[in-house]
Amino acid sequence: MIETVKNRRSIRKYAGKPVEEDLLNRLLAVSERTQTMGNMQLYSVVVTRDEEMKRRLAPAHFNQPMVTQAPVVLTFCADFNRTVRWAEQRKAVPGYDNFLSFLNAATDALLYAQTFCNLAEAEGLGICYLGTTLYMPSQIIEILKLPRLVMPVATLTVGWPDECPAQTDRLPLEAVVHQETYRDYAAADIDHYYKEKEELPENRHFVEINHKETLAQIFTDIRYTKKDNEAMSDGLLKALKQQGFLD
Amino acid sequence: MIETVKNRRSIRKYAGKPVEEDLLNRLLAVSERTQTMGNMQLYSVVVTRDEEMKRRLAPAHFNQPMVTQAPVVLTFCADFNRTVRWAEQRKAVPGYDNFLSFLNAATDALLYAQTFCNLAEAEGLGICYLGTTLYMPSQIIEILKLPRLVMPVATLTVGWPDECPAQTDRLPLEAVVHQETYRDYAAADIDHYYKEKEELPENRHFVEINHKETLAQIFTDIRYTKKDNEAMSDGLLKALKQQGFLD
Repeated sequence: MIETVKNRRSIRKYAGKPVEEDLLNRLLAVSERTQTMGNMQLYSVVVTRDEEMKRRLAPAHFNQPMVTQAPVVLTFCADFNRTVRWAEQRKAVPGYDNFLSFLNAATDALLYAQTFCNLAEAEGLGICYLGTTLYMPSQIIEILKLPRLVMPVATLTVGWPDECPAQTDRLPLEAVVHQETYRDYAAADIDHYYKEKEELPENRHFVEINHKETLAQIFTDIRYTKKDNEAMSDGLLKALKQQGFLD
Repeated sequence: MIETVKNRRSIRKYAGKPVEEDLLNRLLAVSERTQTMGNMQLYSVVVTRDEEMKRRLAPAHFNQPMVTQAPVVLTFCADFNRTVRWAEQRKAVPGYDNFLSFLNAATDALLYAQTFCNLAEAEGLGICYLGTTLYMPSQIIEILKLPRLVMPVATLTVGWPDECPAQTDRLPLEAVVHQETYRDYAAADIDHYYKEKEELPENRHFVEINHKETLAQIFTDIRYTKKDNEAMSDGLLKALKQQGFLD
């Protein structure tokens, strides 16, 4: 298990070999053992195999090619709808149309998704997380017909790997771990922790071809800009309101 | 790996045997291979071993005994502070003080936490998730000295198991999986999916001693009430504002 995680990489190209329904269901079923708030299992997963559905989902994910190329796309949703329907059918008055309940359900959904990832990768499957799920959630909500109190929080493309890309870098452990209290980063810490990343040939190349001065500018000016983040934050908050999780 | 997850249970009682720092660091380091948004690693983890710090954290977790009894408490945080410090030190203008950025960082932190859980349980360690982290985040922020753009999202108590509780029930797979689009739950579906849970002797007993009519009322009237959820939602939104993730 440690070896599997140590050697993992995100896979964006998939072989033609199908992902059998039995295997997929077995992995999704075992993943249900993941910890869940009060054992409510505040999540649902929508399985997309249909080509037409993949084509419809693709624009919501900025047309990343994995969406149409992968045999299976999984959309993990924070779901309080099922629990609320149960409550209403059992003379119980639910109070889960609020922000805390959204974050509780999102947590459940993300933990479930990650156990699935770990299990699927241990079986040799290749996975890519699509961070785009939070960018235009209202499109995904419409396409997958998600009712009130259901909100998409993560999308995975799943298939058998047809590539073995180099592993990406990671920060040294001491950059992310704090003992007893958070020790904020001094300038020298930042220099030290980000040195390896900044000196990678591919990152230097990326800075050069984009005519930037620093790698950090690639993030702030191109990949994750203030303007985009603020516009998408508005859309995200609107979707949370629409789904009943925010006043 | 499948067998480990299949047989897992949350552990709330820990043996005296210490959790070696080497082992903990190895598991936290391997977990860094977990998928992360744009490889930014938008998380930090605060390790609590000090008895006095555990005593201070306990009330923020409703004095659940695991907090002071476990050898190690881990608080996983959504963290954009480190990335922003890096950007500012590299002539880059960050725009991560918004809600989307919080959810991106929370996602990173939760996926990282869950890989750690899976790895730690495979090593025989016992874990309990404390959902209380989102209930009174401002207390945790103060105790752990979390700066702006850092927000606690999950807490784990970690130690060697000193109990082997019965596994809790889970909904059948078809209750949480939807094919192509979300199929909403008819009354008969709800009856079917929740039957096993409702008929468990311990749940029937729980309903009886609480003088309730249904199991669902245990959740809505006692464990997760509308009143508590709404009050804690306010606190959570206030903490997000205080940490700079919301206007």
